[in-house]
Amino acid sequence: MIEEHFRVRYHEADQMGAVHHAAYITWFEEGRSAFTRAIGYPYAAMEADGMALAITDVAARYHQPARYDEEVIVFTCLAELRSRGMMFTYEVRRAVDNTLLVSGTTKLVSVDRQGTVKRLPDAWREKVAAASLIDGGSVAGEVGL
Amino acid sequence: MIEEHFRVRYHEADQMGAVHHAAYITWFEEGRSAFTRAIGYPYAAMEADGMALAITDVAARYHQPARYDEEVIVFTCLAELRSRGMMFTYEVRRAVDNTLLVSGTTKLVSVDRQGTVKRLPDAWREKVAAASLIDGGSVAGEVGL
Amino acid sequence: MIEEHFRVRYHEADQMGAVHHAAYITWFEEGRSAFTRAIGYPYAAMEADGMALAITDVAARYHQPARYDEEVIVFTCLAELRSRGMMFTYEVRRAVDNTLLVSGTTKLVSVDRQGTVKRLPDAWREKVAAASLIDGGSVAGEVGL
Amino acid sequence: MIEEHFRVRYHEADQMGAVHHAAYITWFEEGRSAFTRAIGYPYAAMEADGMALAITDVAARYHQPARYDEEVIVFTCLAELRSRGMMFTYEVRRAVDNTLLVSGTTKLVSVDRQGTVKRLPDAWREKVAAASLIDGGSVAGEVGL
Repeated sequence: MIEEHFRVRYHEADQMGAVHHAAYITWFEEGRSAFTRAIGYPYAAMEADGMALAITDVAARYHQPARYDEEVIVFTCLAELRSRGMMFTYEVRRAVDNTLLVSGTTKLVSVDRQGTVKRLPDAWREKVAAASLIDGGSVAGEVGL
Repeated sequence: MIEEHFRVRYHEADQMGAVHHAAYITWFEEGRSAFTRAIGYPYAAMEADGMALAITDVAARYHQPARYDEEVIVFTCLAELRSRGMMFTYEVRRAVDNTLLVSGTTKLVSVDRQGTVKRLPDAWREKVAAASLIDGGSVAGEVGL
Repeated sequence: MIEEHFRVRYHEADQMGAVHHAAYITWFEEGRSAFTRAIGYPYAAMEADGMALAITDVAARYHQPARYDEEVIVFTCLAELRSRGMMFTYEVRRAVDNTLLVSGTTKLVSVDRQGTVKRLPDAWREKVAAASLIDGGSVAGEVGL
Repeated sequence: MIEEHFRVRYHEADQMGAVHHAAYITWFEEGRSAFTRAIGYPYAAMEADGMALAITDVAARYHQPARYDEEVIVFTCLAELRSRGMMFTYEVRRAVDNTLLVSGTTKLVSVDRQGTVKRLPDAWREKVAAASLIDGGSVAGEVGL
């Protein structure tokens, strides 16, 4: 599980005075960015290698609102790893009291520059295995998504 | 079912050359805006009356990417109406060939200015009933969400 | 001068209850998109041809706030056309009463896929000339930006 | 001068592969947020006190593109302080080599909850004076904006 800390930006709050529900989805993405930096294969490097991760599914549940200028933490877990994709789960918490604000999941598939689904780069799976960052400590077998 | 047509904006596409997955969530919201205008109780009027709809759950599935400048259509259905909330379903389609790009759902609860969950304004349910815009033609009973 | 009409989206307003100042900058961009469609050389086609317009300068003055769900009009003028760039001016007005909300300018240069400044495609200047859409009716000479 | 460090988020880059020009405008805003925290009167506290700063003018010049995942620094200076407003200047630099990416200015006026221009709260000017954060070390006189 990887933690990413930051403050809520002013423009992320809407006229209800709370962070707009779509903004949290971009925070999940920054959780994934932090995850890939943590395993030593940053997503920017993966893109430079000609591969990308395309989102196929997003789900989020909103528990409590985040407010402008609050410090929040995005906790990111790799919940499932397959030959051509993966699933992450997320929790967004208020830093000061650890209150759960939003939870969610995303599913992604590995694609090349033309958008064709391809096996994940070996580097990706090796780095994840080395970092022991798959939940439960084991990597799922070569079951196609 | 309500249709909302518009073109993909330049800044909505990311460096993969397709609309960023969080942007579609804001399109769902514009689908709801169009829905509330269609029933004659625009969401802006509901807010002026001191009530709001807070998102509790979002889910989206991504089928095909939307591209900059394409005309898209957001189809919005009220799938479930309860005393203190509702569920909408959405389909985003490419206008030129009706290809399904993204499908999704959102659940919302009715809240007052303090964020306390409250019964939906009568105006809301009366307008929906008058417009026959609930899927299947019937409005669910007074079952609390 | 080209007009583009649309409604203010919910997420574009911030917790002051007015459209966030950065959102108008994206509206200027949609004004440009409409301009390029109007001359018959849509920006998407220019990108497909391997050329792009990179922003070098933006300026905006905020007169009155736009509000959620209001219909607004973006008026876009090509104020200056040079061999390797151009300047646009914009006015955002509230549709119902023509009130000026925001005015602004952007300067852009023509770049290839590597980001190197290049002469504007001939198609661009021919289409603009044919459409008589340069302000004052004349196109500036081949003075480098 | 106040420094704010962060990494470029994935969704901030557009399909040219560089940060979209409107995103930097939101970074300027986070520079201001950091400035107000540094003087001990965070903007969130000012809003809680019933006052806000409304943007009247923005200008930005784009020198070099920022890219996804790069660490950037926003340098924020209070360039002018008046009785009812102020001007900030900004520089966005790439952290790794200090390259200037974007420079800009914003002018703001102090408004109450109804949007009426009002004198800046005394707290604001006292905190700025105490922090010696006005450029050149002196605060401009009581000249109305």
